[in-house]
Amino acid sequence: MADSLTYPKTKSTTVNRYHTRATYDVQAIHSIVNDSSVLHVSFAPDAEDPFPAILPMIGTMGSYEYPSAGLDEPLDCYLHGYVSSRIMRLATSSPQGLPVSIAATKVDGLVLALTPNAHSYNYRSAILHGYARIVESAEEKVWAMELITNSVVPDRWRHSRVPPDSAEMQSTKILKVKVTAASGKTREGGPHDEAKDTTRDDVTGKTWVGVVPVVEKFCEPIAGPDNKAAELPKYIADYVGEANAKAEAYALNAARLP
Amino acid sequence: MADSLTYPKTKSTTVNRYHTRATYDVQAIHSIVNDSSVLHVSFAPDAEDPFPAILPMIGTMGSYEYPSAGLDEPLDCYLHGYVSSRIMRLATSSPQGLPVSIAATKVDGLVLALTPNAHSYNYRSAILHGYARIVESAEEKVWAMELITNSVVPDRWRHSRVPPDSAEMQSTKILKVKVTAASGKTREGGPHDEAKDTTRDDVTGKTWVGVVPVVEKFCEPIAGPDNKAAELPKYIADYVGEANAKAEAYALNAARLP
Repeated sequence: MADSLTYPKTKSTTVNRYHTRATYDVQAIHSIVNDSSVLHVSFAPDAEDPFPAILPMIGTMGSYEYPSAGLDEPLDCYLHGYVSSRIMRLATSSPQGLPVSIAATKVDGLVLALTPNAHSYNYRSAILHGYARIVESAEEKVWAMELITNSVVPDRWRHSRVPPDSAEMQSTKILKVKVTAASGKTREGGPHDEAKDTTRDDVTGKTWVGVVPVVEKFCEPIAGPDNKAAELPKYIADYVGEANAKAEAYALNAARLP
Repeated sequence: MADSLTYPKTKSTTVNRYHTRATYDVQAIHSIVNDSSVLHVSFAPDAEDPFPAILPMIGTMGSYEYPSAGLDEPLDCYLHGYVSSRIMRLATSSPQGLPVSIAATKVDGLVLALTPNAHSYNYRSAILHGYARIVESAEEKVWAMELITNSVVPDRWRHSRVPPDSAEMQSTKILKVKVTAASGKTREGGPHDEAKDTTRDDVTGKTWVGVVPVVEKFCEPIAGPDNKAAELPKYIADYVGEANAKAEAYALNAARLP
């Protein structure tokens, strides 16, 4: 692992608890972001408001400058969602962009231990800090729209009506986040109880311990009432099958680790 | 619906887009929070840091004062997770508590339309604004620990080793958030395309449109290596079956709506 890239630790991204579960590895963090169907994006409150803004958005890691870059290389985070006039103003009012924190979390299992205190989740989570700007270049915007569309269903872009027309280009806003620091946390394995409980037959005999694996599962696709395409295309059916198999394999493996 | 409680609209919680999908209904918002296995909690950055804090936490709505209160009644949000010394300090340094924003989001389906621009998710999301304080009273803390444990698996608390001992009471921190404003958003139904695309046979003939329903699914529970309890208890098996059936019914129904 000595050759792999890591994000710099900053005071606010350094994980202070459960050190062994923390990662700053670029590939691990980018993978968690890309495996998350929703990201939560937070930025500072308005002057008169004590509550930070927090928005669910769709996002994925990518590099417009080096489109073939792998998950283990430096990437930006491209975000799509409702971009309010306030975000627009904030993201364009400074040359650096709007400071945002981005969270990605996947639950992989409910970890049931002898005592509530030792209960946990198996999970993967990542937090990114960076500066968000609106993508202005039409070329980069179309590239990012394709990247994000294909992050939801691989190969969907070219199987839909493209390119976007000028009204669609105008109404779509893409945020590009230059990531300055990031950290990830992972928990996997079964329950870990303390000797004070594992040595008590009255407790161990009556308390089931183990993991309920959790997966985000795609069900059988349902054609819309206006669908005219003959049958479910192979690229969708394949993705549903492969994504489900991958998610289940991950969660079951995480549950069976010590 | 005239008799149901609603959260007050504030400038920052008023939903400015897709008005028809917005809700301020107390029961709808509390249900989204309780159906979410993870909440994202955000609060303002430190003075020297432009990035808001954002943390995944486990949480549930409840009322210690009126434990039998329903989801349609005023409730607090109880949170469990890693409470840093910074949160401790911030949540105790003002009588009002630490201003936090809490996001709950569930993805119910991938909505695939004729054009990328009309792609969407079926989802339910809620944002709460409120003031977080550390629960100091031992009685309320144990009550909240039971509430949160049973929110993960109903009835788990009394089937595990309780009550918590003094070391567990000391190491567990519970945040209680007094909610001052909240909003929710829901999207359900199939793809909605525009006439410019639906009238083009070359587009409709080659583009499959519909919904891939998405559910958070519990797999078959896996006993830990140290499990001594004879078989999977009925309360866990029942919950796994019922939660999966409920989640799938919701996602399939959402996919089939117009």
